[in-house]
Amino acid sequence: MRNPAIVLVATQMPENIGAAARAMMNFGLTDLRLVAPREEWPNKRAHDLAGHASGILDNAKIYATTREAVADCRRVYAATARSREMVKEVWPPAEASARILAEAVPTAILFGPERTGLTNDDVTIADAIITIPTAPENASLNIAQSVVVVAYQWFVSAWQQEKESRDNDAAPYAIPGRKLRGQPGTTGPQASPVAHKSEFATKEDLQVLFDHLERELDAIDFWKVADKKPKMWLNLRNIFTRNALTQQEVRTLHGVIAELRDS
Amino acid sequence: MRNPAIVLVATQMPENIGAAARAMMNFGLTDLRLVAPREEWPNKRAHDLAGHASGILDNAKIYATTREAVADCRRVYAATARSREMVKEVWPPAEASARILAEAVPTAILFGPERTGLTNDDVTIADAIITIPTAPENASLNIAQSVVVVAYQWFVSAWQQEKESRDNDAAPYAIPGRKLRGQPGTTGPQASPVAHKSEFATKEDLQVLFDHLERELDAIDFWKVADKKPKMWLNLRNIFTRNALTQQEVRTLHGVIAELRDS
Repeated sequence: MRNPAIVLVATQMPENIGAAARAMMNFGLTDLRLVAPREEWPNKRAHDLAGHASGILDNAKIYATTREAVADCRRVYAATARSREMVKEVWPPAEASARILAEAVPTAILFGPERTGLTNDDVTIADAIITIPTAPENASLNIAQSVVVVAYQWFVSAWQQEKESRDNDAAPYAIPGRKLRGQPGTTGPQASPVAHKSEFATKEDLQVLFDHLERELDAIDFWKVADKKPKMWLNLRNIFTRNALTQQEVRTLHGVIAELRDS
Repeated sequence: MRNPAIVLVATQMPENIGAAARAMMNFGLTDLRLVAPREEWPNKRAHDLAGHASGILDNAKIYATTREAVADCRRVYAATARSREMVKEVWPPAEASARILAEAVPTAILFGPERTGLTNDDVTIADAIITIPTAPENASLNIAQSVVVVAYQWFVSAWQQEKESRDNDAAPYAIPGRKLRGQPGTTGPQASPVAHKSEFATKEDLQVLFDHLERELDAIDFWKVADKKPKMWLNLRNIFTRNALTQQEVRTLHGVIAELRDS
């Protein structure tokens, strides 16, 4: 199992990218992806803040859109404090980490830009939301602090799961890190049952489905009032993203769309 | 019960003090204490980083020494990643938070300067050490990141304990925060049994005891070789600080020292 990718969307300050890389390094994460960073890249200010984590910056992949950044992932979580008008699961970091470990599929965690946070379109890509609990009157963590908390909690949860797995196997001398990576079926203490990992559709599969559906809906002028399309289309996609669709289900839905249009 | 005080010792960069205040505000902590900050105070660079948490900076208390900063506290934890040659309990943040909640006495958490970390003298003041688990090869979190992790974990643990306390009382409509403050005997899930809170000696009590003991040991030239005193004296103090002495025990020790000298 790969550790989750950290996806920083439209980050304004290179310092925050550097600080995020540093936190990732401290907590065993390595896969950094940048969507349209606002300042030039590579960036000296990011490297100054990253310290010993400059290797993570060197290997960071750059994408034009969030969609491309998560195309190879099967699960996506959006880190956001703002409540959205979307029916989507919201997990604190500990529960989200347990689920990511239990799901054991390629996963990305999205963090939005400093001032505005993730757009609704980006949150729609995600299967679920991670919200860091804070004192009610002070919800705004900055992006670097949010990455620290999520990475720390992931590391602690992974370590706990590995320990439990070792204890259960009565193999006290197991090589650290081995069990975690080698046991696809292991579930964390707070994780809900999930589909087998090979069954999840990739985000690219899902996007192809959405493109298909949107094309057909446009063709029949499903939206009637053009102004209403963005909101309607966002709600519609959310129905599918929050279900963790399997590849078989995606194929079925392609069939449904095609059949409906042909009839 | 007061929330724990965050004590930043000899911090070099005012930005880190500002970032720490911001993290404190997000996670419901308010008591910031600065020991000999390296740059002038108040400081604009700290305020720029603190954002909405500038009130915490305005109310921060300044001390010349760590000892004075924690004089009114009954428990002190030192946040440090380096292992010390001291026999002292080391807790990850989750377990430390559970203990702080269970102990329910005025508590301080020490964070050292950026480059060098806490001195052994400062660690000796502490009852126990908090070490944030990190990937083995990358132990160095910066100070602001460490405060984020410790404050986050404290907030989550306090929230969990409050929830459990509410659930146990079958009082689903209890005012949030009330139970936590009103239940001195409540213990967190991972906390060990501790003495009743009113029994702990303050750090000032303990320092008076140490002054007494040092005076007497100097008088009898206990150390023999002057060069060896610092290390011997540090080890000696650690014997007492890691035990969470009660006020009665401190009185007893004063008596023992006085009696030994008189005999």
